[in-house]
Amino acid sequence: MRQTSDMSTLNRQYRLAARPDGLPRRTDWTFGEEPVRDPADGEVLVKVILVSLDPAMRGWMNEGKSYVPPVALGEVMRAIGVGRVVASRNPKFAEGDFVAGMFGVQEYAMVDGKGMHRVDPALAPLPKYLGVLGMPGMTAYFGLLDVGKPRPGDTVVVSGAAGAVGSVVGQIAKIKQCRAIGIAGGKAKCDYVTRDLGFDECIDYKAEDVRRALGERCKDGLDVYFDNVGGAILEAALARLALHARIVICGAISQYNSTTGMKGPANYMSLLVHRASMPGMVVFDYAARYKEAAADLAGWLAAGKLKAREDIVAGLDNFPEALLMLFSGENTGKLVLKIAEE
Amino acid sequence: MRQTSDMSTLNRQYRLAARPDGLPRRTDWTFGEEPVRDPADGEVLVKVILVSLDPAMRGWMNEGKSYVPPVALGEVMRAIGVGRVVASRNPKFAEGDFVAGMFGVQEYAMVDGKGMHRVDPALAPLPKYLGVLGMPGMTAYFGLLDVGKPRPGDTVVVSGAAGAVGSVVGQIAKIKQCRAIGIAGGKAKCDYVTRDLGFDECIDYKAEDVRRALGERCKDGLDVYFDNVGGAILEAALARLALHARIVICGAISQYNSTTGMKGPANYMSLLVHRASMPGMVVFDYAARYKEAAADLAGWLAAGKLKAREDIVAGLDNFPEALLMLFSGENTGKLVLKIAEE
Repeated sequence: MRQTSDMSTLNRQYRLAARPDGLPRRTDWTFGEEPVRDPADGEVLVKVILVSLDPAMRGWMNEGKSYVPPVALGEVMRAIGVGRVVASRNPKFAEGDFVAGMFGVQEYAMVDGKGMHRVDPALAPLPKYLGVLGMPGMTAYFGLLDVGKPRPGDTVVVSGAAGAVGSVVGQIAKIKQCRAIGIAGGKAKCDYVTRDLGFDECIDYKAEDVRRALGERCKDGLDVYFDNVGGAILEAALARLALHARIVICGAISQYNSTTGMKGPANYMSLLVHRASMPGMVVFDYAARYKEAAADLAGWLAAGKLKAREDIVAGLDNFPEALLMLFSGENTGKLVLKIAEE
Repeated sequence: MRQTSDMSTLNRQYRLAARPDGLPRRTDWTFGEEPVRDPADGEVLVKVILVSLDPAMRGWMNEGKSYVPPVALGEVMRAIGVGRVVASRNPKFAEGDFVAGMFGVQEYAMVDGKGMHRVDPALAPLPKYLGVLGMPGMTAYFGLLDVGKPRPGDTVVVSGAAGAVGSVVGQIAKIKQCRAIGIAGGKAKCDYVTRDLGFDECIDYKAEDVRRALGERCKDGLDVYFDNVGGAILEAALARLALHARIVICGAISQYNSTTGMKGPANYMSLLVHRASMPGMVVFDYAARYKEAAADLAGWLAAGKLKAREDIVAGLDNFPEALLMLFSGENTGKLVLKIAEE
């Protein structure tokens, strides 16, 4: 192993400093630097190239029990990333390998290799491994197919349709012979969803009454609703269920920054009226089957049946403001922070 | 066929006069009388003995789409009942038959026999056919076993545990080797649930913090929650789920009379955290299998494994006030209005 770092190489990092009340602010993190050390036995040093910005990160900043432990105060902000191995004392990884894993919002990650996997920039550009070939793609794949269980001819509605997960959900629905209806904010996103991604319809929640629009465009009700947003849009979907509908609870981005507490869907008794169900899902449960999903997704990508866009913001310094783009709905496609050149 | 009625026999009836705002009031019905006519070909005239009082009746009084059409203004108030055939021009039913069906809140029902079935007062007292051997029993049976899918050793929690449905849910849970925890209001009901019905525990929501009590008594979380009440108790249950828990949405009695709109469970994202699901159920879907359930329930009753109590109020005149007992929690067991002698 070549020594690639010395005490003069610095690792710049965002560490969690406070638990946000409402939208996160720059002051909820401390931005500092520390020397990069050499890997110990079994360790791998990764130079982070791309940091994934995901709505789930907001939840990880909260105290209390969830599907993963919260980020501790003082800890490097948790984030998935793609990087290059610059030093390894782990036989599974070699210097020069491109890898994806839980690297955090920092320039260098020292990891034990668990949960990290190699990615191939010759097969797909690196940002794709954070989007359609990464967690968002896996979430869409298992959330729709395993949890939503669409049948050919079903009407599948997805919110956040121009986002990293929603865009894939609707395209897989089309591949599976369903009718795909997106919900997104603004004409540009809706055009992207229908023209570029091939959804049958897209409802602009900023311009339309979603409940009425769903009523008009899903006369027989919706069979699957894949929810990324919660709030009023979840209620609109509940009001338009077909019998035996499945509502996949994947996220609730409209609620994550509420300072008055989360709001539940007032009309949840529609589940009874329509003999519907509302299962929650967490992608990590499907880790043993990621390869199966990745093979399908890569195949559809190669065949042109699946399209994916990334929205790339440059500069580690910009992390706090870039993360907020998710909540203001500024990004189209997978939001990625680029912090180093390949 | 003997003529059993003439224009001098009067049928006293409650007809829906207004759609209630909040708790129903006596003025939401008109109490009138009309002559009883003779059955036409295919019809059956039933003298109603018992009227079932059910929380669902509140929902039937509202306008708008639900799992059954609303009761129309001017229509006899819908209710399940038990009665005796006093005249029949339908070959399936004979004078003297005891029958159960959708007879309405009235002294005589003229029906076509569809959905009506014979009951045997020699096998079980008539009120049982409105409770444990009627819709509440069927609801408990299919809601728990088919929708909740409990496995031996599971912790099953049920609200409205001293009520017609909840009391049967917990006892079936015990029969199926589960741990049964009830939630009910007041010491007398809780004592009934644990001492008479054999639940393992009962939480008194009037005296205890339900969320804390569930935390203490279900250390490993609850596997099945059978919800009859909605509101804060549903939220308490959501806060205490085990992984892959099932929340059976059967009713929401705490919400039916809200004048400020229904309230959804604020912490529904617990479904995601715990990979849980929240299916709704309507007992009418299981009509083809009622006999299967009735055989099991009657067998358990006969074997002393299942107990059922009815709370019987006498007098058709008392219908409006008797119905309200459901919402104030005054009844223990199945609430029945007795309007004639057998």
